Amino acid sequence: MDREQFRAAAHSAIDDIVSYFDSVPDRRVLPAVDPGYLRPLIPENPPTEPEDWAKIQEDVDTKIKPGLTHWQSPNFMAYYPASVTYPSILGEMYSATFTAPAFNWLCSPACTEMETIVMDWVAKALGLPECFLSTSKNLGGGVIQNSASDAIATMLVAARERRVREMVLAEGLKEGTTEYEERKMDLQPRLVAIASDQTHSSAAKGALIAGTRFRSVSTRLEENMEMTGSRLREVLEQCDKDGLTPYHLTMTFGTTNTCSVDRFAEIKAVLQEKPAWQRIWVHVDAAYAGAALVADEWQYIAKNFAEGVDSFNMNMHKWLLVNFDASVLFVRNRLDLTNALDITPTYLRNPYSDMGTVIDYRNWSISLGRRFRALKIWFVMRSYGLNGMKAHIRKTIELGNTFADLVRGRSDLFEIVTKPAFALTVFRIKNPQVANGSASGVTVVQKDEIADGITKKVYELINARGEIFITSTVIDGIYVIRVVSANPMAEEKFVRNAFDIVVRTTEEVLQEKK
Amino acid sequence: MDREQFRAAAHSAIDDIVSYFDSVPDRRVLPAVDPGYLRPLIPENPPTEPEDWAKIQEDVDTKIKPGLTHWQSPNFMAYYPASVTYPSILGEMYSATFTAPAFNWLCSPACTEMETIVMDWVAKALGLPECFLSTSKNLGGGVIQNSASDAIATMLVAARERRVREMVLAEGLKEGTTEYEERKMDLQPRLVAIASDQTHSSAAKGALIAGTRFRSVSTRLEENMEMTGSRLREVLEQCDKDGLTPYHLTMTFGTTNTCSVDRFAEIKAVLQEKPAWQRIWVHVDAAYAGAALVADEWQYIAKNFAEGVDSFNMNMHKWLLVNFDASVLFVRNRLDLTNALDITPTYLRNPYSDMGTVIDYRNWSISLGRRFRALKIWFVMRSYGLNGMKAHIRKTIELGNTFADLVRGRSDLFEIVTKPAFALTVFRIKNPQVANGSASGVTVVQKDEIADGITKKVYELINARGEIFITSTVIDGIYVIRVVSANPMAEEKFVRNAFDIVVRTTEEVLQEKK
Repeated sequence: MDREQFRAAAHSAIDDIVSYFDSVPDRRVLPAVDPGYLRPLIPENPPTEPEDWAKIQEDVDTKIKPGLTHWQSPNFMAYYPASVTYPSILGEMYSATFTAPAFNWLCSPACTEMETIVMDWVAKALGLPECFLSTSKNLGGGVIQNSASDAIATMLVAARERRVREMVLAEGLKEGTTEYEERKMDLQPRLVAIASDQTHSSAAKGALIAGTRFRSVSTRLEENMEMTGSRLREVLEQCDKDGLTPYHLTMTFGTTNTCSVDRFAEIKAVLQEKPAWQRIWVHVDAAYAGAALVADEWQYIAKNFAEGVDSFNMNMHKWLLVNFDASVLFVRNRLDLTNALDITPTYLRNPYSDMGTVIDYRNWSISLGRRFRALKIWFVMRSYGLNGMKAHIRKTIELGNTFADLVRGRSDLFEIVTKPAFALTVFRIKNPQVANGSASGVTVVQKDEIADGITKKVYELINARGEIFITSTVIDGIYVIRVVSANPMAEEKFVRNAFDIVVRTTEEVLQEKK
Repeated sequence: MDREQFRAAAHSAIDDIVSYFDSVPDRRVLPAVDPGYLRPLIPENPPTEPEDWAKIQEDVDTKIKPGLTHWQSPNFMAYYPASVTYPSILGEMYSATFTAPAFNWLCSPACTEMETIVMDWVAKALGLPECFLSTSKNLGGGVIQNSASDAIATMLVAARERRVREMVLAEGLKEGTTEYEERKMDLQPRLVAIASDQTHSSAAKGALIAGTRFRSVSTRLEENMEMTGSRLREVLEQCDKDGLTPYHLTMTFGTTNTCSVDRFAEIKAVLQEKPAWQRIWVHVDAAYAGAALVADEWQYIAKNFAEGVDSFNMNMHKWLLVNFDASVLFVRNRLDLTNALDITPTYLRNPYSDMGTVIDYRNWSISLGRRFRALKIWFVMRSYGLNGMKAHIRKTIELGNTFADLVRGRSDLFEIVTKPAFALTVFRIKNPQVANGSASGVTVVQKDEIADGITKKVYELINARGEIFITSTVIDGIYVIRVVSANPMAEEKFVRNAFDIVVRTTEEVLQEKK
């Protein structure tokens, strides 16, 4: 493909991309394909000779698009959103053009330096405390990770190394000696990572990757599925009894199931109770809800992170207008990362890195190579401006409130299960045989197998029909439906339409049950 | 940015991208910037109001481009290449457009299914044995990883889990019991990952991430820096003596320093010697040189992997025309991965995954979310065809041979240090005071501090001037220069020019020394 063929192909692709976005609201949000649909449509072997772009683009249209789940659809109300915006696509185009693995500064100085600068922009936009800026005295800073799972796995490894090092040094052993290494290996199996049972599965997976134990703190519906100080204390005390060393705690700002916020103040107070607990690495996972921090009215939450928090991550690619992957991770002390992950062989040495005057992000992540992802974040922040980003967050939270109000308005059919938060409403269908007691949303919803069955039926019917896409989950033994409408195309009319579908389907299921 | 603003911005960006590629050969390959150059050029805070694309694109031109290391330049001869091609950029555009985290099939069926199909295409293109195809009876298959580092870390975790499970089950303990989990923790600190001292640092980093020990097999210049069976046996026997359990071995096809190929047949014979050694997970890291397998004349090497190899990775983003990230990983048994990494909470459950009829790639990697990277691989394979890919590999290997021949032709100045391979030449400047003995390239180069000093001086001078960019390294105590010219813009005239620069700079340094 020469320059003119590319120019023509790219112009055609751009037109196709614009048409795709225009068509998204009218497409069935969930594709009508069965597993294995694609294999018969694609040749068994790669072609021997080059093929024309026109043929490839046609295949995208006829074979790929029908098999996509349209996450940009305003009828996509499942999981949490995964956004993409036009400036973000421009970022990917330039990122690919400037391809460089960029594992150290010299590999492409602009790539490293822009990442540092843009991460400072993001920290400021979110109102994060000064200690997470690259310019802070405590050597904080941000790094773009592939995903929140990678960020959390990296934090667990760094936390494990920091804790074991501290323990071995405290015993008077010298780093680099055989005794030191042996003692580290002895201590490691006693380490345990802690998170609530509502924490994203990446915390347990990260602990598994790091080869350490994992224990979870239980949550209750009457506590809105939030991790509380007292329940954390129980787990910490049990670890003490079992001779285990808690080394990492994940606090969640916006849990996966219900967008609950762990009780930071209580938790931090508990961690202060014992010297050993003070040494636990505290990570805040704000993968989805962290985006809300761009709006001034939520920034009071970030003030909690000024003390006693070692690291913080959020995914701009969920709710903050940058396409996947744009998982931003901030640490209070970059040496915690580089001490753990820096393995520098000769072929990665260069005078700039050796002087310590530049950042080598390869020591901040599991991946060595990295893409120039700062560009798309830079483009999006400039194209929207802070005010544009705030407006997006405020609008979608408002849409969530609208949906929750609609649900509340039909207390004959529905029960709100957890406190609606950050554009998410979690509810279930009522068991029609039970007297109405929880219309206010204050009374705690009780376990009810009939309600579970009806809710599951309604959920499955809605997704099978594919007009909207929602998710279900089980919290504290209760089957619930989650609705979140927070991608860039979200609008009130779609939220109202979704509610109508939920009502219609519920009435249909209840009618059948009679 | 609305649709028409995007259309205009994207057209302008496409023109800019084409101009950039046209300008690359004339740009200084290493940027003339000092650490910290960018910070004063960028506002301290993100803008409050939206900015126009024209202003952003201008900043890309004036602030970003001057700080790039131009990996696409035909004068880039450092490390190994990181390629990008036009069809690959089109892939990124569509990948961003179809943004979906795609952590399971339902999340975007086309994304998962295309990955499976394209990985089969890649396996066939490389002539990998049938056992690595998704359609194999042994449940093999391929997955796209972020980087080789991620692929290798993932293999180490999977290998650790497989080995410890086998050991605990062999002791008669039942999975899921407390005793089982405790015994796993007891055994883990005895595990040791093994690789040669020429293996990429990601093997040691992966072992560190997995929380296990690491030991390396030494290599010798007289053995062309290849891992041999007998040196591996020494390490395995020492592990036995020390009561350690080797659980993972990385064999390299194309080492980072010298593109050496470990002696697969010898190594596999040694691993057969003891039952415990037969259970070691064998991984082939072919990150760079694996690309050569698309050319028929190299496929005999892949036949080695039909037996006794558990996994294989190569980076299409190095030498095979797809931009970073396109690290492909193949496993013989996908259950080894999913048994290790599958942690499925309720919110990730869905009927398709539960039935086991679809692949959920989140259980094949550390990352949960993933981009639609199969598209760019599909576009590149179709745009080039197998013949286009073979032609690229053959042409660049030929350029490497040309450079090596030029070096050999000046045996008064240079010594070839390791066998030139896969477009890479490793050489040093001779100590002019030592009689010439190694012009044939057969005699083993001897340690020589004066030669080291001159070579280092020449290397530093060349990079400081920035006409070409090369790397140096130290092998078996000898300071060497590496030259590899294998990106899509590589041409003979640039290779000859690079050689002239090396000669000129060498003569200049030798003149000064007199």
